[in-house]
Formats: sequence, structure tokens, C-alpha cells
Amino acid sequence: MSSSTRVRLSHEARREQLLDLGVQMLATRSVDELSIDLLAEQAGISRGLLYHYFRSKHEFHHAVVRRAADDVIAVTAPSEEGGPLERLAGSLEAYLDYVVANYEGYSSLVRGAASGNLAMRGIYEETRTALTDRIFTTAGGAGLVEFGATDTPAARLMVRGWSAMTEEVVLSWVRDDQGVPKEDLLMMLAAGLPAILEATN
Amino acid sequence: MSSSTRVRLSHEARREQLLDLGVQMLATRSVDELSIDLLAEQAGISRGLLYHYFRSKHEFHHAVVRRAADDVIAVTAPSEEGGPLERLAGSLEAYLDYVVANYEGYSSLVRGAASGNLAMRGIYEETRTALTDRIFTTAGGAGLVEFGATDTPAARLMVRGWSAMTEEVVLSWVRDDQGVPKEDLLMMLAAGLPAILEATN
Repeated sequence: MSSSTRVRLSHEARREQLLDLGVQMLATRSVDELSIDLLAEQAGISRGLLYHYFRSKHEFHHAVVRRAADDVIAVTAPSEEGGPLERLAGSLEAYLDYVVANYEGYSSLVRGAASGNLAMRGIYEETRTALTDRIFTTAGGAGLVEFGATDTPAARLMVRGWSAMTEEVVLSWVRDDQGVPKEDLLMMLAAGLPAILEATN
Repeated sequence: MSSSTRVRLSHEARREQLLDLGVQMLATRSVDELSIDLLAEQAGISRGLLYHYFRSKHEFHHAVVRRAADDVIAVTAPSEEGGPLERLAGSLEAYLDYVVANYEGYSSLVRGAASGNLAMRGIYEETRTALTDRIFTTAGGAGLVEFGATDTPAARLMVRGWSAMTEEVVLSWVRDDQGVPKEDLLMMLAAGLPAILEATN
């Protein structure tokens, strides 16, 4: 039994490595451009062996996108230090840096989520919900209370809207920054949240 | 020649009627569910005759979505009367009413635009640009000057973001209003624009 556990862990560990590689590949490619063949080539193993880890191209895509979404949530976790606007701006900077470094894959995820692909849309919706909920109750922080806003359905709707605004503005800016400095962009987006919530109260 | 002109006008007029019918059908259907067969059935003419007006399903979809986009721009044209917030809230109400009445087709357009469909994305982007530009220079109005903001690349980016926020909030609210009254929603979205722009200055 300990031997079987060891084998399973090793299988899991190898699968994790392959997922990491898939996420790296996704940085400069759309989800549709990710193929099992390409993964096999990059990993230096056979196509047949890959099907030992991912039963189908669909399962591979799903697992890579799930991992990428977890990465977005992890890298944008706000610091527990500093004032509310500073913490928010820090989280936004991590998000923007992530989008810059992973533009092809990230924008294909946003497109795929909006299209009819239910699996992609599910992951995207879960991620947006996780990021939105965090605004209300950040680990070690007071969430929205810091902005003088209360947790109402209206505030939740508007924070969801602010997330959509942030996504649109950041993707537009990465495509063409139009001379707007990164620091200005981050401060506008960060200051936008309490401004919107104040209009909600 | 005058006879040929009359025939062409009649062809155009008939095509316009068919487009109107297509737009009505789109209200309760996704773009993908719009078919030439269904249009023929509703119009009471043969499938073959329809190909006299639209060379392909693709051309039919394109023309219907273009017409629907023009409708959105037309119905949301701000009134020339009233204060800036009032005019903005009126335009938003027309937008919201349009989305409620045409939810299936409109949300499929948003999804299609975000997906790989370049033609749909083109129409969607043009529409968003038209709606965004209008914030800066409304016919008969002073545009953003009314909100004490200047027309800078940063302000343009944020107004684009506000459009994305509005779309997300309205689509979410139509799916589930969570008890938020329509009037509250409109005022939050309208007040959100100057609040965001103030944070931009």
C-alpha cells in the first residue's frame, strides 16, 4: 500500500510538472493553440505517455486553464500591510503584470469564457467570483469596511462591474498604452473602486 | 432606368423588412439560433427567395447584428434636455430596457464578440467605440466637460472601462436583480461615471 501510494504521488507530481509546462506554454499562446503534440515535444516525452496523464485534449485544456486561474488568484492576493488603497493598488499591479506576461493565454481565456465554451466559462466565473469576494473579505483585512461601504447586493453588483472595468482597461492598456503611465493606470483603477462604492451608498 | 431604380428600391425595401424581422427574431434567440429557414417561415416566403436578399447565412447574421447594433446606438441616444446626470441616466435606462427586451440576442452578441468571430467582434467594437465617443461629444451637449473632466487618453480608457462595467452590471442584473430596484441601478451606474472620472483627474 505504501508502494502504491508512492506510485500515485509520483504520477501526481509528474502531472503537476506537465501542468506547469502547459501554463508556461499558455503565456504566449491561446488556449486553442495548446496541443498535446506541442506539450509532448516540450516535455520530451511521447504523445502516448501524455494520455496517461490527460485523457483528452479537453481535459488537458481544462486542467491548464484551472491552474492558470489559480495562479491569477494567488499572485493577486493583497498584502496584509499598508492602507486599503495601497493594498488594492498592489493587488492590481500584480494582476497587470500577470496580464502583460501572459497576454496571449489570458486574453484567450477571457474570449473563451465569453464564448459558448461552458467549461471555460465556469472557470472564469469562479475566478471572477473569488476575486470579487476577496474585495469584501480579504484575509487579514477588513474588506470593504475599509472603504466605508457595506456589503449589500447593490455593492456586490458594482464590485463585479468594477472587476469587468479593470479587466477591460488593463487588456486595452496592454494592447496600446496610449502614453498612460502604469502608475497612473493603477491609481485610477484603485481609486475607482471606492469612488464607485461611494456612488452606491 | 427609372424602372430599374424602382426595382432596386423595392429590393432594398424588402431586404429592410426582412432585416427588421430578423432583429425581432433575435430578441428571444441567440445569433446561432437565427436561421434562414426560420426567417423564411416567419416571412412566409421561400428559402430560395431569401438567398436573393442574403447570399449566405453568414451575410444574414452580419446584417441582422449590424442592424441590432444600430438600434442600440439609436435607442440610447441621450436626450438634449436636462442636466448631465439626468441625460446619462435616461440613456442608461433606454440601454437597460433594450437589454431586458432583447436579452437572448444581445447576450449572444456580447459572447460572440468576445469569441473568435471576427465579424461579430468588429461590429461590437465599433458599437462600443460609438457609445464611448458619445460620452465625450454628445450631439447638442458638451460631453465630458459637463462632468468637469478633460478628454485625455486616460479618461478615454476609463470611460471604456465604465462601458464594460455597465454592460456587466446590466447583464448580471437582468439575469438576477437580487432585489436591487431599477432606479437604484441606473443612478449607481450614472453616478459611477463622474466618480470614476474624478478619480482619473
